[in-house]
Amino acid sequence: MLLNFGSSTLSMPQLLMATPTEEYGPWVLTGVLLSLVVIYITSKLGGEFSKRLNLPPVLGELIGGVIVGVSALHLLMFPENSTVATDSIIVRALQSLGNLDLEAVTHVFQSQSEVISVLAELGVIVLLFEIGLESDLRELGKVGYQAAIVAVIGVAAPFILGTVGLVTIFHVPTIPAIFAGAALTATSIGITSKVLSELGHLKSKEGQIIVGAAVIDDVLGIIVLAVVASLAKTGEVDLLNVVYLIISASAFLLGAIFLGKFFNKSFVAIADKLQTRGALLIPAFSFALVMAVLANIIHLEAILGAFAAGLVLDETDKRKELDLQVMPIADILVPIFFVTVGAKADLGVLNPAIAENRAGLIIATFLITIAIIGKVITGWGVFGQPGINRLAIGVGMIPRGEVGLVFAGIGSASGVLDKPLEAAIIVMVILTTFLAPPLLQWALKGQEAEVLIPAGQEAEVSIPAKDTTLTTVD
Amino acid sequence: MLLNFGSSTLSMPQLLMATPTEEYGPWVLTGVLLSLVVIYITSKLGGEFSKRLNLPPVLGELIGGVIVGVSALHLLMFPENSTVATDSIIVRALQSLGNLDLEAVTHVFQSQSEVISVLAELGVIVLLFEIGLESDLRELGKVGYQAAIVAVIGVAAPFILGTVGLVTIFHVPTIPAIFAGAALTATSIGITSKVLSELGHLKSKEGQIIVGAAVIDDVLGIIVLAVVASLAKTGEVDLLNVVYLIISASAFLLGAIFLGKFFNKSFVAIADKLQTRGALLIPAFSFALVMAVLANIIHLEAILGAFAAGLVLDETDKRKELDLQVMPIADILVPIFFVTVGAKADLGVLNPAIAENRAGLIIATFLITIAIIGKVITGWGVFGQPGINRLAIGVGMIPRGEVGLVFAGIGSASGVLDKPLEAAIIVMVILTTFLAPPLLQWALKGQEAEVLIPAGQEAEVSIPAKDTTLTTVD
Repeated sequence: MLLNFGSSTLSMPQLLMATPTEEYGPWVLTGVLLSLVVIYITSKLGGEFSKRLNLPPVLGELIGGVIVGVSALHLLMFPENSTVATDSIIVRALQSLGNLDLEAVTHVFQSQSEVISVLAELGVIVLLFEIGLESDLRELGKVGYQAAIVAVIGVAAPFILGTVGLVTIFHVPTIPAIFAGAALTATSIGITSKVLSELGHLKSKEGQIIVGAAVIDDVLGIIVLAVVASLAKTGEVDLLNVVYLIISASAFLLGAIFLGKFFNKSFVAIADKLQTRGALLIPAFSFALVMAVLANIIHLEAILGAFAAGLVLDETDKRKELDLQVMPIADILVPIFFVTVGAKADLGVLNPAIAENRAGLIIATFLITIAIIGKVITGWGVFGQPGINRLAIGVGMIPRGEVGLVFAGIGSASGVLDKPLEAAIIVMVILTTFLAPPLLQWALKGQEAEVLIPAGQEAEVSIPAKDTTLTTVD
Repeated sequence: MLLNFGSSTLSMPQLLMATPTEEYGPWVLTGVLLSLVVIYITSKLGGEFSKRLNLPPVLGELIGGVIVGVSALHLLMFPENSTVATDSIIVRALQSLGNLDLEAVTHVFQSQSEVISVLAELGVIVLLFEIGLESDLRELGKVGYQAAIVAVIGVAAPFILGTVGLVTIFHVPTIPAIFAGAALTATSIGITSKVLSELGHLKSKEGQIIVGAAVIDDVLGIIVLAVVASLAKTGEVDLLNVVYLIISASAFLLGAIFLGKFFNKSFVAIADKLQTRGALLIPAFSFALVMAVLANIIHLEAILGAFAAGLVLDETDKRKELDLQVMPIADILVPIFFVTVGAKADLGVLNPAIAENRAGLIIATFLITIAIIGKVITGWGVFGQPGINRLAIGVGMIPRGEVGLVFAGIGSASGVLDKPLEAAIIVMVILTTFLAPPLLQWALKGQEAEVLIPAGQEAEVSIPAKDTTLTTVD
């Protein structure tokens, strides 16, 4: 990609992209604003519809995303789905409004997709920060062992059952089978914690075990991913890298919480000294972002850092004030994440009319069965908690979410997975993600939330909002 | 830019950019998160420092931006300043962390800059939405004539003085002189309204006249821009386009407010019916975004749409609740705008050691004088308001902000402006922008805010924030 211009060497993107940012900037902004409007309308329509059907609102946001996304209306499109600019209806609208040529619309499409993707990532970062703020470190500590057991079973059972099943029943070669087995291990902490929060069960013992297990599962998932990725690349496991990952991940999570105890006091002191707007919010938000970056740098997911930051700040006496201020930010950023997840899910792989999908669908049926059984049994690994809802814990671990798709993506890019197996993994991820919210609601049915629904939760949102108006200075 | 590959024709960006989004996605996110951390730390350090010196915090944010930006530390860089990826310290850090090649860092640099720029735009959109929510349509209507006179004088005086002065004193040819004169007409509504808000003067009569005049000035500025842009392109004025712009802009602003009266009731009805999180915020925010898009489509600035949306929603009984929820969003988005404005301001043009800057600096001195005089006199155009602070009104119109830079950019791109004149315009924009906050504070000194400082304003931020904690459900 290097062209020689006289004596200086410039790469193509540099040459191409020096001006577009300025030139098409207004169109990128318009595209982003239009996409956000589509996302908000979708999330509200989907969420409210879901709520009216007595289902968790997040399910409606996901399905709404599917409807406006690559699978149906083509309003919200992303280059990841191998789409081009003119597949997107929003981009086509901009094209005719601005009389843009193909190069311009391609730039606008790429840029607006990138912006929406980053906003979605910020959304799930803020979601996990909020979940961290609402979780109690001591409560989480009390169920730590149980959560660890649930996580380990939830990784080992689907992995072994899936890999062995694929090799023996479907005669899949070992390495692709291991890859598919690995994709079965993930748990989407974002979707699970959002549903728990919507049902008012985040602070129940079951909820805390699920969140704790999902966090540990995420760490285990990174390690599994490193193992299978090096398997796919070199055919053998880079043990040193695995050991490094285990140490750095544990050091990060424990170190964050340990150092957080000290940082707590100076954080409150700093916030008290600031006199300009956002005196509390900006330091807190910056702390969450720093932790997200640190997590990212040591190859953990950014959301784990944000979760740890929330846990730490939950220990301060600024917690409630912070909760209230983070809420509106979560309200506008989190829907971007869920609608985007839905919009990126290509349901085309479910179409049995296409011949090459059929082989995948048969394997997918097997993978979904394992995906559900392998996680549901984890609830029975919990000990010393009489009367606990084991089914709910197991069901809470079911959604694979975006983590599962990462496996499919890497496997496909490295050529390990053939088309049917990749499609089967994608179908498994989509279905577990969409099935989990209603299943979890069903599993928790009749069981009252063990603690008072905290402020900022779904069911109570109108009360603090209305109360606060009484205290404004006028 | 079209290459022929076999029978299909693909544009270069399409070929180049199909994969980077996926491949470098995590690094773009890390870059954005790091940039946000830099922005937040800068805004808090600058804002607090400014506040301690008894200056408006926004001045500190702007200067902080200069320090971390292209003029000094190179932490926050943008391709608009003709910088390449490796000029940015954040990008260099990512490069060594991720072992990225030149193509990768260029993509990451472009993408993260684009995301930060869009976030900055969202910041000023939210700022104007908030200003609209805090402005009172009836109060604004009462000073409408005064605001219109201030705006017209503030466009005519600097334009005539500047153009004539450049032609007669500096012997600049007519078309470039008209261009520079046009750049003198802008008023940065964002900076002015933020300072007014910080000083608790937004709702005073002076404040409402300034905001009203800045809005009208913005509309006039768009028309002036259209005139000079067509002058620069064809050498003559496209009268039809000018008439179209005048009609569409007036129709938009008046139509928004008129239709808003009807929309008001259905808005409240919708918000009351919604049962999921963000029941009030999401419809309100979506409305602001839709209005911003509409403004953008008819070639007005997006922020005018957001301002109109705020004005309309201010009339509902949900106003206070909404105010409180928009505040934290403004807290995290608005600093991105101001720090970015500072970071993009290249103070290199002020360096007299570089020979080609000197001619520019002499013209700049003239332009700055005109820029200040031409706006300060506008205050004396106000009639029928005995005892009004005329100086404050004039001073409030001084900052040119980003609108002035748009003129410089278009003039430079079309080849109308030579290097010294372009530099002179940039220096004028930078200095008027940075001088306005302390000057406005000085002009308003000793004058108490005429109305109670509204909730959500600078000086009172700690009171509602602390009060609200008492009312949370626990």
